[in-house]
Amino acid sequence: MKFLGAGIAAGLAALAASYGNGNVISKTIENMARQPEMSGQLRSMMFIGVGLIEAVPIIAIVIAFLMVL
Amino acid sequence: MKFLGAGIAAGLAALAASYGNGNVISKTIENMARQPEMSGQLRSMMFIGVGLIEAVPIIAIVIAFLMVL
Amino acid sequence: MKFLGAGIAAGLAALAASYGNGNVISKTIENMARQPEMSGQLRSMMFIGVGLIEAVPIIAIVIAFLMVL
Amino acid sequence: MKFLGAGIAAGLAALAASYGNGNVISKTIENMARQPEMSGQLRSMMFIGVGLIEAVPIIAIVIAFLMVL
Amino acid sequence: MKFLGAGIAAGLAALAASYGNGNVISKTIENMARQPEMSGQLRSMMFIGVGLIEAVPIIAIVIAFLMVL
Amino acid sequence: MKFLGAGIAAGLAALAASYGNGNVISKTIENMARQPEMSGQLRSMMFIGVGLIEAVPIIAIVIAFLMVL
Amino acid sequence: MKFLGAGIAAGLAALAASYGNGNVISKTIENMARQPEMSGQLRSMMFIGVGLIEAVPIIAIVIAFLMVL
Amino acid sequence: MKFLGAGIAAGLAALAASYGNGNVISKTIENMARQPEMSGQLRSMMFIGVGLIEAVPIIAIVIAFLMVL
Amino acid sequence: MKFLGAGIAAGLAALAASYGNGNVISKTIENMARQPEMSGQLRSMMFIGVGLIEAVPIIAIVIAFLMVL
Amino acid sequence: MKFLGAGIAAGLAALAASYGNGNVISKTIENMARQPEMSGQLRSMMFIGVGLIEAVPIIAIVIAFLMVL
Amino acid sequence: MKFLGAGIAAGLAALAASYGNGNVISKTIENMARQPEMSGQLRSMMFIGVGLIEAVPIIAIVIAFLMVL
Amino acid sequence: MKFLGAGIAAGLAALAASYGNGNVISKTIENMARQPEMSGQLRSMMFIGVGLIEAVPIIAIVIAFLMVL
Amino acid sequence: MKFLGAGIAAGLAALAASYGNGNVISKTIENMARQPEMSGQLRSMMFIGVGLIEAVPIIAIVIAFLMVL
Amino acid sequence: MKFLGAGIAAGLAALAASYGNGNVISKTIENMARQPEMSGQLRSMMFIGVGLIEAVPIIAIVIAFLMVL
Repeated sequence: MKFLGAGIAAGLAALAASYGNGNVISKTIENMARQPEMSGQLRSMMFIGVGLIEAVPIIAIVIAFLMVL
Repeated sequence: MKFLGAGIAAGLAALAASYGNGNVISKTIENMARQPEMSGQLRSMMFIGVGLIEAVPIIAIVIAFLMVL
Repeated sequence: MKFLGAGIAAGLAALAASYGNGNVISKTIENMARQPEMSGQLRSMMFIGVGLIEAVPIIAIVIAFLMVL
Repeated sequence: MKFLGAGIAAGLAALAASYGNGNVISKTIENMARQPEMSGQLRSMMFIGVGLIEAVPIIAIVIAFLMVL
Repeated sequence: MKFLGAGIAAGLAALAASYGNGNVISKTIENMARQPEMSGQLRSMMFIGVGLIEAVPIIAIVIAFLMVL
Repeated sequence: MKFLGAGIAAGLAALAASYGNGNVISKTIENMARQPEMSGQLRSMMFIGVGLIEAVPIIAIVIAFLMVL
Repeated sequence: MKFLGAGIAAGLAALAASYGNGNVISKTIENMARQPEMSGQLRSMMFIGVGLIEAVPIIAIVIAFLMVL
Repeated sequence: MKFLGAGIAAGLAALAASYGNGNVISKTIENMARQPEMSGQLRSMMFIGVGLIEAVPIIAIVIAFLMVL
Repeated sequence: MKFLGAGIAAGLAALAASYGNGNVISKTIENMARQPEMSGQLRSMMFIGVGLIEAVPIIAIVIAFLMVL
Repeated sequence: MKFLGAGIAAGLAALAASYGNGNVISKTIENMARQPEMSGQLRSMMFIGVGLIEAVPIIAIVIAFLMVL
Repeated sequence: MKFLGAGIAAGLAALAASYGNGNVISKTIENMARQPEMSGQLRSMMFIGVGLIEAVPIIAIVIAFLMVL
Repeated sequence: MKFLGAGIAAGLAALAASYGNGNVISKTIENMARQPEMSGQLRSMMFIGVGLIEAVPIIAIVIAFLMVL
Repeated sequence: MKFLGAGIAAGLAALAASYGNGNVISKTIENMARQPEMSGQLRSMMFIGVGLIEAVPIIAIVIAFLMVL
Repeated sequence: MKFLGAGIAAGLAALAASYGNGNVISKTIENMARQPEMSGQLRSMMFIGVGLIEAVPIIAIVIAFLMVL
């Protein structure tokens, strides 16, 4: 049961991070193409956003590691 | 059964945090590109929002840790 | 079975709080960017809303704690 | 089985309350930004609405407590 | 199995009431902001609607209580 | 298994009644705000509609009662 | 297993009837508000429609009764 | 297992008939309100349609009866 | 297990036939109301379509009968 | 288990054929009403399409028959 | 378990082929009605497309046959 | 369990290939009808796309064969 | 259990690769038809994209092979 | 159970990476076609985005490898 739990945690964490990041990055690309003069500011914003989004999934990954090892 | 519960809790918490954060951050980027003069205010708003959103998922992560350890 | 219940409760509570908060905060940011002169009022409204939304998920978190400990 | 039932009840109640409240509050913020002169009336309406929505989820939370304790 | 049934009944009832009420109340707020002169009539209509919607979920809650106690 | 069946029946009946009623009532409020001169006719129509919708869920509730008692 | 089957049959029948009726009645109210001069014809049409929709769910309810009693 | 199968068959048949009928009847009401001069033709069309839609669900109901009795 | 399979087959066949027929018939009614001069041709087309759609569900119903009897 | 597999295969095949056919036929009716002068060509196209769509579901039905008999 | 696997494989293959074919053929009919002068080219394109789509489902059907026989 | 795994792999692979191909081919047909002068280039693009899409599903099919044989 | 895991991994990997590729390739074809002068650049972009998308599914396929062999 | 967990983790990771990448790359291609002069900047942005998205799924893949080997 240990491995099943780790699989679910790791899988959902990957799904979560990809969903959130994909959403933010594609929005950034869209707006960067529309207003090239804000390119730097949007890119720095995106890095902050990606960092914030990946916080919880990475802890979930750590939990999955704890179960597997 | 202990590990399965922890996996579900951690996975759903990661999904939750990413969904909420991804939603807020992509909205912020969109509006920041549209009205660059409000850039500072929106960014500070976003940090507050991300903090509020991550409150409950992080407690869920703590619960998952409690189960695993 | 105890831990499975706690995992489901904590995971769904995290999902619930993030969904509700993400919805409210992204709406606030959108309207704050559109009408900057109402910025203060909308922000205070948002804090009340977030408080009201997080009431029930936090009780669900408490129930999950009761099961785990 | 007792704990599983409590977990489902508490989790769905949290989901329910957050969905309903998030819907109502984000609608209120949107319309308050559009028509600032109705701000007071909409806010009082929102509080009544949140109260009505949280009635049933809170009873479900009580049922979950009855099962856990 | 008794508790699982009660949990499902209470959780779905909470989901049901919140979905229905959230739908009606957010519609009321939207239309009240659009036509402030009909504010009283819409509010009384909303209370009737909420009462009608909560009839069946509350009976489901009663059934859940019957199972738990 | 008896209680699980009752829980599913009662929960789905509550979901059904709330979905149908919420749909009809929110439509009524929307159209009442748009055409106030038809307010009486629409309200009487709504009561008939709610009565017709709640017929089957209430029988399902009765079946749930039969199982529980 | 008998009761579980009855619960599923009754729950889905309630969901079915409410979905179909809610759809038809809300459409009727919408069109009645748009064209008040056709009000009588639409209402009689709605009653026929509701009767036709409720035919099969009520037989499903009867089957659920047969299982429970 | 016999009763579970009957419950699923009857429940899905009810869902099917209500979905199809609700779809056809609400479309008929919408178009009847838009073009009142075709009212008779559309109504007769609707009865044929309802008859055709209900053919298969009613056979499924018969199968459910065969299992229960 | 025999009856469960029959229930699933009959239920899905009913769902399938109602979905397909409901889709075709509501489309026919919509276009018949828009272009009354093509009424005959569309109606004959609809009967062919309904016949073609119901071919496979009816065989599935036959399979369900084979399992039950 | 044999019958359950046959039920799933037959049910999904019916769902598949009805979804595909319903989609193609309703599209045909819509375009036939819009451009009556292409009526013959579209109808012959539709028959080819229905034949191509029903190829695989009918083989799935054959597999279901093989399991049942 | 052998038959269950075959049922799932055959059912999903039928669903897959019908979804893909229905999508391509309805698109073809729509565009053929819009631009009749490209009728031949689109039809030949459609046959190639249908052939390409049905490649994998037919192999899945073969796998299902291998399991059943 | 071996056959169940093969069934799931083959079924999902068929679903995957049909979804991807159906999407690409219907898009190609739509754009070919809109800009007939690019017909050749789009068709060659489509064949490359279909080849790329079918790569992974066909490996999944091979895995399913490995399990069955 | 080994084969079930391999089936799920291979099936989801196929679904994933087809979804991502189908999305990218159909977008490429759409934009290539709209701006033929960028045809080369878009095609090279598409090949890079397809390569990046297929990286993870192919590793999942490798994992599935490891389980089967 | 070990292999089932690995299968779920690998499958969901593949789904996650493909969803996120597919989303970002198709957005990039769309905007590159619209504003060719920003082509280089968007492409470099896309590579960063793909790198960020694939971080978590690849860790999930590593976890799946840890379970299998």
